[in-house]
Amino acid sequence: MNKVAFIGGGSFGTALGVLLAKEKNIVSIYDRDINVVNDINRNRKNNKYIKNLEITSGVTAFNDIEATVNGAEYIVLAVPSHVIRSVSKSLKGKIPNNIPIISIAKGIEEHSNKRLSIVINEELDNPVVVLSGPSHAEEVALELPTTLVATSEVMKYADDVQNLFMSPFLRVYTNDDIIGVEVGGAVKNIIALAAGVLDGIGYGDNTKAALMTRGMKEIARVGIELGGKEETFYGLTGMGDLIVTCTSMHSRNRRAGLLIGEGMPIDKVLERIGMVVEGIKACKAFYELKEKINISMPITDMLYKVLFEFKDPKEGVAELMLRDKKNEIF
Amino acid sequence: MNKVAFIGGGSFGTALGVLLAKEKNIVSIYDRDINVVNDINRNRKNNKYIKNLEITSGVTAFNDIEATVNGAEYIVLAVPSHVIRSVSKSLKGKIPNNIPIISIAKGIEEHSNKRLSIVINEELDNPVVVLSGPSHAEEVALELPTTLVATSEVMKYADDVQNLFMSPFLRVYTNDDIIGVEVGGAVKNIIALAAGVLDGIGYGDNTKAALMTRGMKEIARVGIELGGKEETFYGLTGMGDLIVTCTSMHSRNRRAGLLIGEGMPIDKVLERIGMVVEGIKACKAFYELKEKINISMPITDMLYKVLFEFKDPKEGVAELMLRDKKNEIF
Repeated sequence: MNKVAFIGGGSFGTALGVLLAKEKNIVSIYDRDINVVNDINRNRKNNKYIKNLEITSGVTAFNDIEATVNGAEYIVLAVPSHVIRSVSKSLKGKIPNNIPIISIAKGIEEHSNKRLSIVINEELDNPVVVLSGPSHAEEVALELPTTLVATSEVMKYADDVQNLFMSPFLRVYTNDDIIGVEVGGAVKNIIALAAGVLDGIGYGDNTKAALMTRGMKEIARVGIELGGKEETFYGLTGMGDLIVTCTSMHSRNRRAGLLIGEGMPIDKVLERIGMVVEGIKACKAFYELKEKINISMPITDMLYKVLFEFKDPKEGVAELMLRDKKNEIF
Repeated sequence: MNKVAFIGGGSFGTALGVLLAKEKNIVSIYDRDINVVNDINRNRKNNKYIKNLEITSGVTAFNDIEATVNGAEYIVLAVPSHVIRSVSKSLKGKIPNNIPIISIAKGIEEHSNKRLSIVINEELDNPVVVLSGPSHAEEVALELPTTLVATSEVMKYADDVQNLFMSPFLRVYTNDDIIGVEVGGAVKNIIALAAGVLDGIGYGDNTKAALMTRGMKEIARVGIELGGKEETFYGLTGMGDLIVTCTSMHSRNRRAGLLIGEGMPIDKVLERIGMVVEGIKACKAFYELKEKINISMPITDMLYKVLFEFKDPKEGVAELMLRDKKNEIF
């Protein structure tokens, strides 16, 4: 039995919290929206973020961070990437610095292009464990079998988080390659967005499978350059998450790509999806980065032109298909 | 301009033949069914195997092997794996032994468990090029962008086949790892069948992405043991083909798995699908093989129990989820 505090009452955090409470842990959830807090405490529901999930009695919501983290043995940062820094700052001095911070956001910080665990450790001295993998919140809530990877530079913390979350519906692996997990999680959103564009144009399974496979090479290429391990990119947090993001309608990145492929301008797409599309930010960041470190990322390149230089997506695909003939491996 | 003879008028062969004819090659197709031959020559259709494909005038069908291969510079074996040996035998003495045989079947020979290029070279002295990748025939026929890999031990032949098939809709890579391509192509059918079983039970995208990712590890593990290269398994003929087979309703293996997951007995499944389900044969072959060479293939293991020992599929998944806690890489 552990006391676990979630910062953020979004869909994935809430689904994980309920799962932990069912395994007899004591779960607190902070949300800045008082309506979400009241919905959880009074109606045992979180209809704003995740419908059809019955919130068990072991979960209590708070509108106050200090009350939420009081006595917690684990803190889960369940907020989008663009508020990771401000939320980490707000925890400063409120938690002991030896308890693990579990990060479940994907993406990189805008402008600085820093990995999220770096951002957290610039604000807090706590050990960070990244929890990532192919895991739509809606399906975790339905208790459909799901796998995750707990990753930390110090394996003891990864092991602890594995023990905390492992359950009949959730199989947790460990890994120590935090760079690989975070870079893979960010770049896969670029490929998922591109996959959505292909679907929007009306291309088939052949085209998308080719994009995903060549996209994996792109993820591994940049990821290894940045210090990650190849086997991580081909694991659950890389390939697994790429597959789930590219093939499911739950994914915001893929839905955004679909609309772009159908010809909708980007500002309208962002208006329609109404939430942060991590793939667009990641595309910009890695486009700039690849120029600096001089590696080949043809899919990121082409998507950048489609997103920011009014390139016709269909023409972009045709150009990718007709590049110089190549050996598959190099 | 080349003269290319296809042995077998199935869906993939016919779609590739039409594509070559459009690029000004002379294409002949042998089929043992006179109705298919007449349909192609008289109606410019092949309604038995692939509907909605207009067969261009550069394609001629024959009911006679000698007439088909007369003057051919390339022979494409477009027949299922279980007749590769007899068809190769029937070509003996009818073709010069320096022209390449292009193999597009996937699977391994029953009982002998031999790779198909080995089977061909036990009957014919010709160089063999394996042409494989994520490529549903129905989508090739619609000219949706598709990628393939031409693989041969002697790169000259792979290069020739790359040049032959490369077109605006078909991007062809080369590779020299024929073991990796053939083993990957056979084992991925096991994972696709298992993916279908998960869909039949009613599990979601999280579960399937986990199966595919862990399945890739299984493909690579056995494939490397058999002499293939790791990068081949994570390329278009391995990962790419796995993705397309696991996510598309065009796949017989996945459709068979779906029915098994829904609770239909195997003999009924085979009756319903009405064609060879390569994944069932591959599961049996690799189950036997892995015992001999002593490597771990937990998904193949569990599928074998479901297929041949009346194991309940849902129980099987639960056991896989609750195995000993693991590090992701090892």
